[in-house]
Amino acid sequence: MTLSELQKDLIKNNADAIIVTRNNMFLGQDILEEENKVKELSGFSGSAGNLLIFRDKIFLFVDGRYELQASLEVDTTKITVITTKETLATWIQNNINEPCKIIYNPWCHSISEVDYWGRALKKHTFIADEKDLLGNRLSSKKAEIFEHKIEFSGVSMEEKISYLTEFMKQKSLDAYFITECDNLSWLMNLRSDCLADTPILRAFALIDSNGEISLFTNDFKQIEVELSKYKGKSIGINFKQTPRQIYNIMKNHRIWTENLENPISQWKAAKNPIELQGFKNAHHRDGLSLIRFLYWLENNWNGQDELSIVNKLKEFRSSNTHFYSNSFETIAGFGSNGAIVHYHPAPSTNKKLENGSLLLIDSGAQYYDATTDITRTVAIGTPSQEMIDSFTQVLKAHIAVASAYFPNGTPGCALDALSRAQLWKFGKDYNHGTGHGVGCFLNVHEGPISLSTKGNSPISTHMVTSIEPGYYKENNYGIRIENLAYTEKVSIPETDKEMLCFKILTLVPIDKKLINKYLLNEQEINWINTYHTQILQEFQQELDKETTQWLKQSCQAL
Amino acid sequence: MTLSELQKDLIKNNADAIIVTRNNMFLGQDILEEENKVKELSGFSGSAGNLLIFRDKIFLFVDGRYELQASLEVDTTKITVITTKETLATWIQNNINEPCKIIYNPWCHSISEVDYWGRALKKHTFIADEKDLLGNRLSSKKAEIFEHKIEFSGVSMEEKISYLTEFMKQKSLDAYFITECDNLSWLMNLRSDCLADTPILRAFALIDSNGEISLFTNDFKQIEVELSKYKGKSIGINFKQTPRQIYNIMKNHRIWTENLENPISQWKAAKNPIELQGFKNAHHRDGLSLIRFLYWLENNWNGQDELSIVNKLKEFRSSNTHFYSNSFETIAGFGSNGAIVHYHPAPSTNKKLENGSLLLIDSGAQYYDATTDITRTVAIGTPSQEMIDSFTQVLKAHIAVASAYFPNGTPGCALDALSRAQLWKFGKDYNHGTGHGVGCFLNVHEGPISLSTKGNSPISTHMVTSIEPGYYKENNYGIRIENLAYTEKVSIPETDKEMLCFKILTLVPIDKKLINKYLLNEQEINWINTYHTQILQEFQQELDKETTQWLKQSCQAL
Repeated sequence: MTLSELQKDLIKNNADAIIVTRNNMFLGQDILEEENKVKELSGFSGSAGNLLIFRDKIFLFVDGRYELQASLEVDTTKITVITTKETLATWIQNNINEPCKIIYNPWCHSISEVDYWGRALKKHTFIADEKDLLGNRLSSKKAEIFEHKIEFSGVSMEEKISYLTEFMKQKSLDAYFITECDNLSWLMNLRSDCLADTPILRAFALIDSNGEISLFTNDFKQIEVELSKYKGKSIGINFKQTPRQIYNIMKNHRIWTENLENPISQWKAAKNPIELQGFKNAHHRDGLSLIRFLYWLENNWNGQDELSIVNKLKEFRSSNTHFYSNSFETIAGFGSNGAIVHYHPAPSTNKKLENGSLLLIDSGAQYYDATTDITRTVAIGTPSQEMIDSFTQVLKAHIAVASAYFPNGTPGCALDALSRAQLWKFGKDYNHGTGHGVGCFLNVHEGPISLSTKGNSPISTHMVTSIEPGYYKENNYGIRIENLAYTEKVSIPETDKEMLCFKILTLVPIDKKLINKYLLNEQEINWINTYHTQILQEFQQELDKETTQWLKQSCQAL
Repeated sequence: MTLSELQKDLIKNNADAIIVTRNNMFLGQDILEEENKVKELSGFSGSAGNLLIFRDKIFLFVDGRYELQASLEVDTTKITVITTKETLATWIQNNINEPCKIIYNPWCHSISEVDYWGRALKKHTFIADEKDLLGNRLSSKKAEIFEHKIEFSGVSMEEKISYLTEFMKQKSLDAYFITECDNLSWLMNLRSDCLADTPILRAFALIDSNGEISLFTNDFKQIEVELSKYKGKSIGINFKQTPRQIYNIMKNHRIWTENLENPISQWKAAKNPIELQGFKNAHHRDGLSLIRFLYWLENNWNGQDELSIVNKLKEFRSSNTHFYSNSFETIAGFGSNGAIVHYHPAPSTNKKLENGSLLLIDSGAQYYDATTDITRTVAIGTPSQEMIDSFTQVLKAHIAVASAYFPNGTPGCALDALSRAQLWKFGKDYNHGTGHGVGCFLNVHEGPISLSTKGNSPISTHMVTSIEPGYYKENNYGIRIENLAYTEKVSIPETDKEMLCFKILTLVPIDKKLINKYLLNEQEINWINTYHTQILQEFQQELDKETTQWLKQSCQAL
């Protein structure tokens, strides 16, 4: 199917426009290359975008970070690229005056989104066409499904299902329909090899109030067959994460839909003791690899480039016990490339490492026992004083969160503010969140925990999050310091009060060449010295003599 | 009308229940004593509450702070007091299983609230009875309306109206219907003496797109007459702040209603140069009064009690130029009374001042040129080390906000977190916001600015807010340190960046007897010394010898 064929179809179907989104039916999850209809039609390869195709004109909607890329990738004589902070819906509201008939694929838009169109765009008519292009847009590639063993998951599927049936009882539900892949993967202790860096099982499931499961992995016609048995009954779904088509099927069969946040999101966020031990073990292995890599880098950067660095780092990691894959595409940005937040090295942009700038490396791994995510910014040769001071300011922001005490239930936005306030003093900030939840051999970005300006999900014990403030000087250099940490209860001395604090999982030294001690206060200096001491104790028995020597130096007190 | 008469009415009207709220038609604003139907019917005098009256049972809903008071004030053999974090609607949803016909007064509930009932409580029927009890529930007391002169307001009504007509043009509105008293008072530069501590004009107004005003101050039948001229036209209203009855009238006359945040709230929040100068001038006078009061208190506390303190403070203030009234009922809480956040001294609770505890005084004034609000916590005699350390921790929280730099548009919740984080370190917190916006000769609590866990309104230049962290040790003592401040742009040295910072308006020394210098870092010590130096410079020429001497001591560097 091409754009002009789609335009002809519009005339044939007596419609004015069609929306083509990058999503498949697993809304917001990563997709496979061959599922990307936006790319297939327009050439735009970014990770978010919508096409709005009229009979005589075509718009591509992308967010700010993709402005340049989109205009390079698409034929701008045919496609107008719109970079807007507004949603597609708001843009239509403000720019399309004549009432339009607009086709959309109800597999690829959520119930909430289509509801919103109905409320906000009353003058237009939205026509669900579940067969547009390729239906649910799933690749026919066959994925291998495998168990996430109890030695890693810690809790059996049966027990997890019992939480859910208890929940259904409380809410008087006859069933729950799960559309979030990561929640389903966690619930069933199943994973699959479908996506490169994220071992989620791509499937939907209907769980009845007795805990019976109907799993839909590729025969999605079966969904309607199963749902048709629930006429007059009540099924829980999350309107924000469920394709409109599921709702349409339920309505056709006169099923009561109950819009609920999926409770699994909260259960999954608080790691159980086995998962937590897995995080510690995986970070031990990951830390060793990173330390060996950093030692190698210090002695071998000359002649290396971003792409060779990415390969070298994978080499160090991939022989680790329980290693499964990277957890995302490694970012290695040298100099000005480090200042591009969503940069990934490619042959056309690949920079050689040179004396006097910074290398930002953001990478992670999927191990069977946990997922890792770490960013280190390293001085290549001799850094400038300005780089050192900026790095130290980012370090202060990092420590402000890492050393905070806070009440159970504090929302992520509060912790986000503690980090930024340290940079605001110097007129600096960063255009991304301070931290994100992390799954256990699942998504490296896992909701609902979000340390960000809008993060309102309450944080409680044993949740794993990243802490990753940064600073990006355009055309110059980028700095980010990222550790993973989990929350633990802490008693306040001389009171009967309990608070939460962070226990750091990531154990890799922070480059002291980039720290200006005189910008740190006593508590901050203590924090970094304690952290480095912990790293040295953790690893000094396991490294060869030279690396141990390097680690001792790297971990020496400030 | 009594409760049992109302219950008989229910039978007569074939209804199951009636909701009686404390609000009048000016939703959420202060009300006059005689307008309080909840008190008239139940005896409960708190500042928020709802009665839900069934034929055979009666519930009073109050929030946590009124739990004790409500059970003392009402006849609990007839009325069940419910203290719930849920809304009335959620309680009905969870507790009333049989479908009910519930009467409510559409003058006293917002459009949004009644909408919510419709969505969340589908099984029940809500019947608008605009004549329940006393219709719009307004006192027949005649208020005097007077102009807020241009020398204080800084911008003429004509100019302010022009902002609104421009806004209507942008939004394609034929009129705007204003129901928020403070926004209307600001827009028209009018005030009234109706309420004791808040000089707002209690009225509604319809402003057409040419800026013509229909003002409704007591003849509310006229509203329908005026609105009836807008059939088929489009009027802007704020669903959250507009009585349902206004919406009903508009729908009856087939008017298009456009739900919009009232733009005046934002315009009013950013003070103009004359208002800002008024704030400075008013705080100069207010500061002089407070300093004289504190000097007097130090030498005369023996034999005083909370009520005599309240009177004495008013004496110092009320002779000031441009003094109009207090801006709220003064809180003077000694010892354990200080730990009750919403405490006001009364003959039954009045405590005598004694050596060895803390006096918390939260007070403010309405001056024609601005509104003030200040809390000082003062050691009476010799405080304990624990009191000193707690006070110093609260001071650290105060300084964390007062000295923060932050980007234009930062939401209040970010600043709230900076304050609390200082107390969280010590296992402490406070159960109220960190700050609120303040009107100019208007509400002492003025939206939309709110430094609180849920405060999401963006802060920009020249907004006035309180900064008032606290700590309350139950049955022991209370601490709060409150200043007003306004936001100003600040250039970051050696960069081209601009941030916002706070400029402190309140100029009254902070009790050094309560500061443990060794808990403060260098920046915090600098902040307090600079603040005290500023106070000394501001006032030392204007005080008598003894008070000057006292002030010099009070402002001496730590």
